[in-house]
Amino acid sequence: MPPDEFRAAAHETADLLADYLAGVGRYDVVPKIAPGDVRKTLPAAPPERGEAMDAILADYKHLIEPNVTHWNHPGFMAYFAITGSGPGVLGEALAAGLNVNAMLWRTGPAPTELEELVCDWLRQMVGLPPEFKGHINDTASIATLLSLAAARHRLPGLDIRTKGMAGRGDVPPLTIYCSDQAHSSVDKAAITLGLGTENVRKIPSDALFRMDVAALRDAITLDRTAGCLPVAVVATAGTTSTTSVDLLRAIGELCRAEKLWLHVDAAYAGSACICPEFRALLDGLELADTIVLNPHKWLFTPVDCSVLLAREPDALKNAFALVPEYLKTSDAGATNLMDYGVQLGRRFRALKLWFVIRYFGVEGLRERIRAHCALAQEFKQWVEGEPAFELCAPVPFSTVCFRSMPEQLKTDPAALDRFNEKLLAEVNAAGPVFLSSTKLRGRVVLRLTVGNLRTTREHVAKASELLKRCADEAQPRPSK
Amino acid sequence: MPPDEFRAAAHETADLLADYLAGVGRYDVVPKIAPGDVRKTLPAAPPERGEAMDAILADYKHLIEPNVTHWNHPGFMAYFAITGSGPGVLGEALAAGLNVNAMLWRTGPAPTELEELVCDWLRQMVGLPPEFKGHINDTASIATLLSLAAARHRLPGLDIRTKGMAGRGDVPPLTIYCSDQAHSSVDKAAITLGLGTENVRKIPSDALFRMDVAALRDAITLDRTAGCLPVAVVATAGTTSTTSVDLLRAIGELCRAEKLWLHVDAAYAGSACICPEFRALLDGLELADTIVLNPHKWLFTPVDCSVLLAREPDALKNAFALVPEYLKTSDAGATNLMDYGVQLGRRFRALKLWFVIRYFGVEGLRERIRAHCALAQEFKQWVEGEPAFELCAPVPFSTVCFRSMPEQLKTDPAALDRFNEKLLAEVNAAGPVFLSSTKLRGRVVLRLTVGNLRTTREHVAKASELLKRCADEAQPRPSK
Repeated sequence: MPPDEFRAAAHETADLLADYLAGVGRYDVVPKIAPGDVRKTLPAAPPERGEAMDAILADYKHLIEPNVTHWNHPGFMAYFAITGSGPGVLGEALAAGLNVNAMLWRTGPAPTELEELVCDWLRQMVGLPPEFKGHINDTASIATLLSLAAARHRLPGLDIRTKGMAGRGDVPPLTIYCSDQAHSSVDKAAITLGLGTENVRKIPSDALFRMDVAALRDAITLDRTAGCLPVAVVATAGTTSTTSVDLLRAIGELCRAEKLWLHVDAAYAGSACICPEFRALLDGLELADTIVLNPHKWLFTPVDCSVLLAREPDALKNAFALVPEYLKTSDAGATNLMDYGVQLGRRFRALKLWFVIRYFGVEGLRERIRAHCALAQEFKQWVEGEPAFELCAPVPFSTVCFRSMPEQLKTDPAALDRFNEKLLAEVNAAGPVFLSSTKLRGRVVLRLTVGNLRTTREHVAKASELLKRCADEAQPRPSK
Repeated sequence: MPPDEFRAAAHETADLLADYLAGVGRYDVVPKIAPGDVRKTLPAAPPERGEAMDAILADYKHLIEPNVTHWNHPGFMAYFAITGSGPGVLGEALAAGLNVNAMLWRTGPAPTELEELVCDWLRQMVGLPPEFKGHINDTASIATLLSLAAARHRLPGLDIRTKGMAGRGDVPPLTIYCSDQAHSSVDKAAITLGLGTENVRKIPSDALFRMDVAALRDAITLDRTAGCLPVAVVATAGTTSTTSVDLLRAIGELCRAEKLWLHVDAAYAGSACICPEFRALLDGLELADTIVLNPHKWLFTPVDCSVLLAREPDALKNAFALVPEYLKTSDAGATNLMDYGVQLGRRFRALKLWFVIRYFGVEGLRERIRAHCALAQEFKQWVEGEPAFELCAPVPFSTVCFRSMPEQLKTDPAALDRFNEKLLAEVNAAGPVFLSSTKLRGRVVLRLTVGNLRTTREHVAKASELLKRCADEAQPRPSK
């Protein structure tokens, strides 16, 4: 693209971005379309001749932008709400221009060193000792996979990296432990690593949705007795359904006594740890061998940016490093980030995180985390004050689990589930907000989570109002 | 970030991008710095207070931009040269603004459908039958991992997904086959999947660096006789060292006869297949079960964008899909892209690829691929015409393997290796070009590859000139 043409198109793009971020709240959060609606507006075959950038950007504006689910919308309160903040978006744009692949220090000196630096900033921000070193992956799914691969590799005398696990008489079933509230990425890691989903022990959670530590201890003992080899525990700090926090200190101490690897999935709640009052909820975090935190979840960094902090980074390197001839360099003392995982190609993700931390400052980030948690508390209070709704879990951070509980359905759990599913569909169909659902103890529960920088009290109030109105309208009337 | 402030910073960023892309050729390709030089210019602790975006962008310009290795530089001819083209960069910037996570159709309708569409465009462009369906991953490393996981999962009667491979008497050693020229990602996949690197059979390559198909057949037979269970063959179309292409038809037919899964790593040469004359070199590609092609390598799309085409996408889905309660939706007929791999989080990578294909058009992309290959042929002719240099491999695409061969060192292979390593270091230290090296049959070989849109005859001529000058100066003189 000729330089002048690029410059003009880049400014046009800057305005598209600015218009979008300023006006995203005017869209329905979820577009009212059905599967296939977008594709049928687009040519089935690629164009032989090139097209003008203006035409492409116009199609983007009219065919694509309105038909995404607007994760950057202040009314997005489903799953975990996120923000692609201004500085983060601009950092990503600049990284795309550089187009660096920081597989080796040599192929990305500043990207490699900035990645080490921002991970260390994050370590300081969440109050972990200096031995923890970090690197950035695309997702927590990969971070958890890498951590469990490292745990498997360090099993003494087995050399699974070289010999594999199949066809060997000397490798017993390898078991992993997490709570019944843990993220599906633990199962996906067990599938990928060849451990098998049935060797993931889902330890029951207590009344507060935290892993039952006594049950964990029993499960480990039982497995050892049965000839299994326990490999690792995955504790969760901020479970996906309720944001409950496992008892990290007790689990960490048990892991040390049992010589088990401890990975902490703090993808969500790790961000909150920059506030001392929330860090206290993760007491014992420093006992982990690895911790994953996702700045793309609640530190206002565009996807993807998932930080894996490791007490002994060499455990990852030992599991994965291999240097083919075409990648050998002689840069003594340099970190080659490709050595710490599966992927050779590595984007310059540190840039956007550096922009975000500098633009907001740690105090600014704390304020925003606290504001989100305060909004969640307000919503929680609203739920508690409404006779036709009930709170379904504690609210330690910015996520509220609740459900509608019409008097007439109190004794019919299945009908109650259907009622809440229908309520969720109606609230989401209205447009201004997007909530999600989960199941707790087998029952349908709704979730509202605050994590977007543009979300205000008014957006949360709109959710309450829609919930109340839709629930009232849907409520089964007593027959006359 | 307030809307007006964002708009101003976005325009500032547009100019930074435009200035960089217009002027990148003025930098040395590799910055003249040592490990640690960048980090010591940066504060060791994160700022408590937020900083002005102008200050951050100024630091980017002065501390970061000059200290990256410039993959977007026309003199970058190392590894595989790539381009973050104008339309690709703008597509990435817009994707960052949307900040969509297209894990489910519901959470990204247009991103999901555009991903399916552009993968189908690519399928048509490289001449594959319509049963191949694609999705986009971050890297070929992950694509190869997913493919081999699918191959492992479909082994009849073993249900490795559920039961794992450890501690079982009914799972023999599982073996994978690739040539001695295959990419290290095959080994990394074997490590991750728990197959073990020693169960990756590195089949010898022939004189043209292609997998020896008779040796492959023998290895499979030998393994079966020895009680191993062959799982998959990974053929390479465009090996990393020489860009040789394995005999895909013969390998494909063997795989069908042996009922083995065939994955083709066409990360590099797959892009060239949009030209019929290069597609012919990949005869038999359609016999593959899965094929990985990297638009971020040679289709001018910013990293990351790696397309995995699968003949039976359900093989991937069967291996990986699991839907926790918090992600259940009721969108009948919709594709949920999270089902096809490890990662739950999925960036909107299709947007930039859509921009690139539309901006250049397929014919425009073909012209550029052909121009790169023509430049490589010119360089090859230069090597062949220089008495002190020799060509080390055929040049089917845009990559040339060669070395300097001073008369006095012809009989001393180790000295010749050292001479070429020193030559490479000197040429790269000069600044205007960046080449890389590999080993072929145990000997050091240099590589020059053309893949950047800004690379012209003059840049390649600069490489020749530097090579000749540095080789002349370094040449051992006859003692007087």
